[in-house]
Amino acid sequence: MSDDWRASNRVGRIGKSAIHEMTRLSKQVEDVAFLSWAKPTSDTPEHIKQAAIGAIEKGLTAGYSSTSGLPQLQQAIAEKLNSFNRINAEASEIIVTVGAIEGLCAAVMAIIDPGDEVILPTPTYSTHIRQVVIASGKPVLVPLVEEEGFRWDIEATKRAITPRTKAILYCSPSNPTGTVFDEATLRQLSEIALENNLMVITDEAYEFFTFDGHQHFSIGSIPEMRRNTISCFTFTKTYAMTGYRVGYLHAEESLIPQITKAHIPFAICAPVVSQYAALAAIKGDQDCVAKFRDHYLITRDLMCERLDRLSSVFAYVKPGGSYLMFPKILVDGGKTDSSLFCRKLLQEARVSTTPGIAFGPTGESHLRLSFCVSEDEVNKAFDRMEAYFG
Amino acid sequence: MSDDWRASNRVGRIGKSAIHEMTRLSKQVEDVAFLSWAKPTSDTPEHIKQAAIGAIEKGLTAGYSSTSGLPQLQQAIAEKLNSFNRINAEASEIIVTVGAIEGLCAAVMAIIDPGDEVILPTPTYSTHIRQVVIASGKPVLVPLVEEEGFRWDIEATKRAITPRTKAILYCSPSNPTGTVFDEATLRQLSEIALENNLMVITDEAYEFFTFDGHQHFSIGSIPEMRRNTISCFTFTKTYAMTGYRVGYLHAEESLIPQITKAHIPFAICAPVVSQYAALAAIKGDQDCVAKFRDHYLITRDLMCERLDRLSSVFAYVKPGGSYLMFPKILVDGGKTDSSLFCRKLLQEARVSTTPGIAFGPTGESHLRLSFCVSEDEVNKAFDRMEAYFG
Repeated sequence: MSDDWRASNRVGRIGKSAIHEMTRLSKQVEDVAFLSWAKPTSDTPEHIKQAAIGAIEKGLTAGYSSTSGLPQLQQAIAEKLNSFNRINAEASEIIVTVGAIEGLCAAVMAIIDPGDEVILPTPTYSTHIRQVVIASGKPVLVPLVEEEGFRWDIEATKRAITPRTKAILYCSPSNPTGTVFDEATLRQLSEIALENNLMVITDEAYEFFTFDGHQHFSIGSIPEMRRNTISCFTFTKTYAMTGYRVGYLHAEESLIPQITKAHIPFAICAPVVSQYAALAAIKGDQDCVAKFRDHYLITRDLMCERLDRLSSVFAYVKPGGSYLMFPKILVDGGKTDSSLFCRKLLQEARVSTTPGIAFGPTGESHLRLSFCVSEDEVNKAFDRMEAYFG
Repeated sequence: MSDDWRASNRVGRIGKSAIHEMTRLSKQVEDVAFLSWAKPTSDTPEHIKQAAIGAIEKGLTAGYSSTSGLPQLQQAIAEKLNSFNRINAEASEIIVTVGAIEGLCAAVMAIIDPGDEVILPTPTYSTHIRQVVIASGKPVLVPLVEEEGFRWDIEATKRAITPRTKAILYCSPSNPTGTVFDEATLRQLSEIALENNLMVITDEAYEFFTFDGHQHFSIGSIPEMRRNTISCFTFTKTYAMTGYRVGYLHAEESLIPQITKAHIPFAICAPVVSQYAALAAIKGDQDCVAKFRDHYLITRDLMCERLDRLSSVFAYVKPGGSYLMFPKILVDGGKTDSSLFCRKLLQEARVSTTPGIAFGPTGESHLRLSFCVSEDEVNKAFDRMEAYFG
């Protein structure tokens, strides 16, 4: 709790963001090897940049768009959802949002009231947990089974349901573990949702980055789940444009006006120049996405190789997707204070990572590493860590 | 209340946005005279557009900025707050936000808990009321005294305070009335806030658009109010860049981490290309702002003249600021259903306006007119209204 009379209990319940705190601390260290932020280091592909520039030049970006977004963008998104995600989507069921994050927050606000419970896996993306707390809701964290590749624990999920449970909120591929929850698992989850009248809110930010035959599956593609799913996506990870802040959500049409009631007070509409960039991204050549994926596969494999050489310090589950992984810290008998560990690693080895505690209680004794960086950056970080732990 | 099992009570309590609903309906009418949205019809000034383009070309816009915004933008904002608003501001006390709106919403979330009360004037910008409801708070609406030029009723404000009151939230210059609350009034309000340990949250979106000697005053400039004020601003109205979605807030430094806990789940950071545009706007020549103000003064005077010719239909208070006004509808003995009135005006006279009921209970029997349009647009709308009511 904050002791500031001015601050609400909801924010008092939330600690400082470890992700953003590490970014801030990292800026104070010279020549740091940076593995701590889920932000691609590549520039946005040229044709997307040119589309943004063209829209500015043509005077298309000065005014608000519709709150739901540019109609031609909604249409293109609906087509992509039908073809890639197999979600039966209409343009009128789309809201273009400020990244996936604003769509997720609007979805949470539209579904839960103070005291309502939302089930999330742990570890999971910390901001999801915070979104529930900001809504004065109660996050109920169900541990993933790390020993079985961060498997979703269906039985534990069933046991976590109470009369106050309103929703399940997850990301797949997972931030921070890189786990791709498979179709069979998500079908089991959908059965739980339907039996208990729960909504499922998804964060599918890393949908295009899967490896080794893992397939991204959208729970919203299950016909019975149409009325029970709010699916959130973003352009920013797929096309290396995190700074543009543009994503979208899909929900069955009758829910759209309810979500809009939260979307307008948050943002009015997504930035229009970014919507034109997004339109070029989704309509343009998708080779850039394949290239990013190929690159992340290389850096993932390199990171795993380098981790293998530090097997007395870290154990890890090879991520099937995303550009993130979540090694366990073995020193101190697996009972490491991850914040202290990451801070020392930053100050003494000049390697920036994110403490696992940021991702839920079972994230302690872990750290999150991002491989959306160059091979040189991975090598630089691990050369330093080898020297440090050696 | 929504009867959809999926929707939360908080969104169930909110009606559809009349502003955005009128925009939607207006699109179905051909060749409409459009006075209903507070969105400048001018394009963004060329030097601001070129700065956005330059930043994209240089590869500066791909990645997130700090959650608080670009440091050089925070610095420029602090200088502007010191010089124009006389707010004693440091760069570290600034968060760059997705328009003023996201800053306002983050401020509300950081201050109030479910059941807490927030005092707002009525009429006021409907989205402020909705932001309180989205936070599961209780808006307490204190009527402005229309007969005295929409004067703030200080005595009624005092009577509205209860043990649950946490904040006062207002905009000046006012949306929808165009009232510029003067320094004396705001000093009285600050005394109430200090006596009762209340926060004041301001929306100063129209700060640069004041007329006839009315002076914009920032309540955050009162030294005693430093710890009691969150002041919200935007670039989007000042520089005709509503589509860019970039604004900022100022609060005393110790409150910034608390507000950030809501800002991150809403947006992570403001769109970076828009932040570069904003930097050019705030550092560049301010002649464009003077030109916009001169134009709005002309269209305001024209609108008042045209309203004078319809004095059997409308009575109005001449707005001292903003680019909005809020005439009272005199037909039906001052008991007009404003939604019905605006809908008929749209369908039968092809003039798009916003129903007053959108701005609080005392907004009924009024409509909001925007004069951020060309003189031709004002004349077109009023020619049609004269024919329609004549």
